[in-house]
Amino acid sequence: MGECGSGATSGALGEREIIEAVKARLEMMPGMPVPFGDDVSAVNVDGKRVAVLKTDMLVARTDVPAGMSFWQAARKAVVMNVSDFAAKGALPIAALVSLGLPGSLPREDVEAIASGLNAGAREYGAYVIGGDTNEASDVVIAVFLFGTAKRETLMLRGGARVGDIVAVSGFFGKSAAGLRVLLDGCKVSEKLREVLVSSVFMPHARLKEGLALASSSAVSASIDSSDGLAWSLHELARMSGVGFVLESVPVADEVRRFAEFNGLNALDLALYGGEEYELVVTVKPKFWVKAESAVESVGGRLLPIGKVVRDKRVILKLDGKKQLVEARGWEHFKSKP
Amino acid sequence: MGECGSGATSGALGEREIIEAVKARLEMMPGMPVPFGDDVSAVNVDGKRVAVLKTDMLVARTDVPAGMSFWQAARKAVVMNVSDFAAKGALPIAALVSLGLPGSLPREDVEAIASGLNAGAREYGAYVIGGDTNEASDVVIAVFLFGTAKRETLMLRGGARVGDIVAVSGFFGKSAAGLRVLLDGCKVSEKLREVLVSSVFMPHARLKEGLALASSSAVSASIDSSDGLAWSLHELARMSGVGFVLESVPVADEVRRFAEFNGLNALDLALYGGEEYELVVTVKPKFWVKAESAVESVGGRLLPIGKVVRDKRVILKLDGKKQLVEARGWEHFKSKP
Repeated sequence: MGECGSGATSGALGEREIIEAVKARLEMMPGMPVPFGDDVSAVNVDGKRVAVLKTDMLVARTDVPAGMSFWQAARKAVVMNVSDFAAKGALPIAALVSLGLPGSLPREDVEAIASGLNAGAREYGAYVIGGDTNEASDVVIAVFLFGTAKRETLMLRGGARVGDIVAVSGFFGKSAAGLRVLLDGCKVSEKLREVLVSSVFMPHARLKEGLALASSSAVSASIDSSDGLAWSLHELARMSGVGFVLESVPVADEVRRFAEFNGLNALDLALYGGEEYELVVTVKPKFWVKAESAVESVGGRLLPIGKVVRDKRVILKLDGKKQLVEARGWEHFKSKP
Repeated sequence: MGECGSGATSGALGEREIIEAVKARLEMMPGMPVPFGDDVSAVNVDGKRVAVLKTDMLVARTDVPAGMSFWQAARKAVVMNVSDFAAKGALPIAALVSLGLPGSLPREDVEAIASGLNAGAREYGAYVIGGDTNEASDVVIAVFLFGTAKRETLMLRGGARVGDIVAVSGFFGKSAAGLRVLLDGCKVSEKLREVLVSSVFMPHARLKEGLALASSSAVSASIDSSDGLAWSLHELARMSGVGFVLESVPVADEVRRFAEFNGLNALDLALYGGEEYELVVTVKPKFWVKAESAVESVGGRLLPIGKVVRDKRVILKLDGKKQLVEARGWEHFKSKP
């Protein structure tokens, strides 16, 4: 990335290498209802219900572009956790937050963070019920989300089967384009800027859609697209032991216009972006109508983009031409816009 | 503090001021089984059981003294959360961890952190089942602990009543003395050093004791002493609307010897230390034997130190002399050893 301007940072280990190194040192809990490495973790509560748990940390220095307020950053820290609940069909109930704050941070910034956390939780029916604060060099917002789900309707990453329809809950590329505007100085009209930047500053989780899909029992596998559409597809494929052939990629109109104006590839922005909170799911063909109407009944939409296949690659067929969708996207430490 | 050597850092806002500023901006969840600001948070799961939730963050730069390994720091990050569960009589089941890591951190340090997290959880029967990693300037370990408890046996901070016996689960001052050795260069024999420093590097949570006390239903109020004995007593008093008259403070023998050798006040080390994970509880006199034998049945001890009184101060009566126990202890941002 970085075609319009500035550079990249790097680290010794990539985020996924770190996760593997950590995982290798952990004893696994027996009988986990959700495998390690899925969007959320879960614990059996009784025969039917599971407690759903998730943590996702936001570090202002690396995750918050200039121009984004503390209120927005804190709200987003909650929303990105809610999005993982949405992808599993779990209901968020309560959030706890561990805050790392520089000693010099003014009181109004602390208050803005608190209000943003509250706003993010209340938007999705949850409450912030506790937390911890510590002195740290960076502003660090570690959100922990708790909720519940029916064990049998949890939508995991590993259930996609050959023949299933691949579908998404919206159009892609706006946050990738927004980040280019913010970080790389890409040019854009004032109106377009507003749309693209607001997708970065004020993301929304597809919670209603996720809960409706879980209730429909029509979904065989699900993930959110927070690491980018391409990466999410590869994760679903890897965890399910399948591949995908895509016949379309829903690129947002605004992204097409932005890409044209800046000489960028709109498809790349849609596939290899990130910080975008759509759902990526697979559905058995006989349940398609059920899945589609479940999402539409809550005001959303479900866009079919391809099929699950045996060949374990992710291929995009456009205008009769095939191209390989690469397993890359948004990764902390290694890729920065 | 700092009588033996180095100085203090400070911040614009104290930890408790920050918590108040945050709390004021949050909408409270209706019907919370545990009030905001107690050691843990909780959510009703069914009529009888509650989900218990806790987060406590460790920042290496401010919370980890020189000489403490990453393995020990990570283990301690779990143990300090378990200690809050112990104080409420809740069973820890699963931990999630958000890690902030400098990009330059070597792989072996990441592995040591993971092993330490696993060790801390397994010691108390819990498992690490998920988490998140991010690039950050400091090593940040935010642990999120989930477990369950019977709603009716939860031991809250606010239940102490006039006439109850105040008791603790052990002797105090070792971690305060250990920090003086580590941070202020206080002098000590090699053998004593080992004991004092290990209480800082390898703390233990009184989980068995806490669970046994909860089962006994003999406790009217409970807190852990992680912010220091004096501070914990004042918190119990404040949340219960009472005061305490203490007749003794159990000071560890090693602390008496250390204090004498360095010309320090052993009582001050025991009262105003912190990072010590004993339980501080109140018990109705008619339940005393029940409480004591519950703790002894799991190999622990319960030491009576005073009485709950109407006068909302905390007074220590020693050798016929009264002294006021101050509401100070271990506070991030404002007090550093």
